[in-house]
Amino acid sequence: MAREVDISTLLSRQAGTRRFTQPIGMIGPGEGGIEDCEAAYAAAQAFARAGLHIICGGRGGVMEAASAGARAAGGVVVGLLPEDDIRAANPYLTVAIATGMGEMRNALIARSSLCLVAIGGGIGTLSEIALGLKWGKRVFALNSDADLPGMIKVESVNELIDVVLEWLAAHP
Amino acid sequence: MAREVDISTLLSRQAGTRRFTQPIGMIGPGEGGIEDCEAAYAAAQAFARAGLHIICGGRGGVMEAASAGARAAGGVVVGLLPEDDIRAANPYLTVAIATGMGEMRNALIARSSLCLVAIGGGIGTLSEIALGLKWGKRVFALNSDADLPGMIKVESVNELIDVVLEWLAAHP
Amino acid sequence: MAREVDISTLLSRQAGTRRFTQPIGMIGPGEGGIEDCEAAYAAAQAFARAGLHIICGGRGGVMEAASAGARAAGGVVVGLLPEDDIRAANPYLTVAIATGMGEMRNALIARSSLCLVAIGGGIGTLSEIALGLKWGKRVFALNSDADLPGMIKVESVNELIDVVLEWLAAHP
Amino acid sequence: MAREVDISTLLSRQAGTRRFTQPIGMIGPGEGGIEDCEAAYAAAQAFARAGLHIICGGRGGVMEAASAGARAAGGVVVGLLPEDDIRAANPYLTVAIATGMGEMRNALIARSSLCLVAIGGGIGTLSEIALGLKWGKRVFALNSDADLPGMIKVESVNELIDVVLEWLAAHP
Repeated sequence: MAREVDISTLLSRQAGTRRFTQPIGMIGPGEGGIEDCEAAYAAAQAFARAGLHIICGGRGGVMEAASAGARAAGGVVVGLLPEDDIRAANPYLTVAIATGMGEMRNALIARSSLCLVAIGGGIGTLSEIALGLKWGKRVFALNSDADLPGMIKVESVNELIDVVLEWLAAHP
Repeated sequence: MAREVDISTLLSRQAGTRRFTQPIGMIGPGEGGIEDCEAAYAAAQAFARAGLHIICGGRGGVMEAASAGARAAGGVVVGLLPEDDIRAANPYLTVAIATGMGEMRNALIARSSLCLVAIGGGIGTLSEIALGLKWGKRVFALNSDADLPGMIKVESVNELIDVVLEWLAAHP
Repeated sequence: MAREVDISTLLSRQAGTRRFTQPIGMIGPGEGGIEDCEAAYAAAQAFARAGLHIICGGRGGVMEAASAGARAAGGVVVGLLPEDDIRAANPYLTVAIATGMGEMRNALIARSSLCLVAIGGGIGTLSEIALGLKWGKRVFALNSDADLPGMIKVESVNELIDVVLEWLAAHP
Repeated sequence: MAREVDISTLLSRQAGTRRFTQPIGMIGPGEGGIEDCEAAYAAAQAFARAGLHIICGGRGGVMEAASAGARAAGGVVVGLLPEDDIRAANPYLTVAIATGMGEMRNALIARSSLCLVAIGGGIGTLSEIALGLKWGKRVFALNSDADLPGMIKVESVNELIDVVLEWLAAHP
């Protein structure tokens, strides 16, 4: 199965000097529905199994589900919080960065990600998708109500994991 | 004519203690077409005549046209530049703020505007529209290829000026 | 008197294409004493008379005094506020930029200033002086408890105004 | 020996729900001398052994030495880079965050740290110390040419490690 191959290839790469140190940005609503959260958990878990790190907004909903999934696979999750304290952080973050930058931290997530994985809809997620596309980032989206030129929309979490891992495996 | 009334009402307000000090954010492509630039010039000129200030990205295209229009009416234009120097600033800015924040400055424009006036299309403008909507800003758009819930789309520069001035006149 | 010459030279320059669009950063404590506030008022008034613009933190104390002085001379004052609303803005700002970036906005003031004028002491002012020096900015200081290599410390507000205007007049 | 006790206490804490997720900020010159770099390596290694994470500027000198030390002990190091790519990242970072914010990222390090550990001198390090103090952070400093009220200056790397671990162990 293609995915297994990709994971072992990626794991080998992550053990060497060409490893990805830029994190995968996982974005989605803070009040994500159960389906979005389950997808975020599964996707983050798969990325962490492949040795990849996650960056997210550090709070609840899709952000928390992604954090939990990555941690369940032993991964590293960095959360960029809007506040200047960590009280609103979800409990699964490896490292909580209390930016004190308010909602400007959303732009920082889009700016610093290796690629963006958007799960779920809403204007906040859309704004991050648009920033990512503007900055030339690859943007993968599941359950998105947006339809912007350049977005790679997928139909299921399995497809999401496959296309992201394939893109990573082919990354220079 | 409704507009004349609004301008004198706004001018009176701008002379008093309830004046608007938050600037109107004018956004649009740096390589704007002639139609978009003419609209930006006319709109900024009208806003400046009503005593309002402009904030923009400080560079060319729609940003430069808006700057020129505002200055032609004696207005104040603040440009937030991505670089940490002002070499790329258009010549019409009153105050050039070299943020050194790169494209993160786009988020700062959306964050700090009284309302956003978007002229023209493209993913950069869309990302600012989405940020503005997310942050609860009123967003007026002309010649936009975006269609997001909450955007106030207008058909002509005259309609744009009218709806913005009316909104300002009704602002608490 | 040297200062008169400088002001007319600077005023001429500000009417042309080589005018300074970068603002002078005026920094100092938000709870500034009366002496610091009077100095800030007088200095900002002089800079505004010479056609220069001011950027500051937009709140009270030295920031408010500088804003009032500049406005008394018809100048333009941009205030970068930490909050994402303008309730804490002093009433003298020409343009209030509600950054929502929290105290990170201090770094933005140091980053974007043509030069920094620090009046008064305290750790907040010191941190901005240090950032300015690090970024190669000219830093003029009155009543400062800091003594960092590169700071230009002055003994009176008259000396402050003189050295800043002379530096501006000699600026390429 | 006090330090051994602190490490086991801290390690237990890091395994539980009260673990520190905020990283220790390690700051110092990018062209740090050998003594500063050796101290940064040893200190970061000790912090990582105690289960703490590091945040730094992600580049060379003291930042690279701290990154290498933490990684040698299996720790997690987050680097906040000024650029919007990771080419200037040191090879020891766990997660490289390409902020694209330029030198503004220094403020973000001071803002988001649990405490700051400064090794070596220079105006850049001083500016971060001052920002940390301003924001109420505990600042520990070795080989610093600064002497600001509130700084905890230490004489050796062993003392540095001891006082930081003791402070962490006593942290609520």
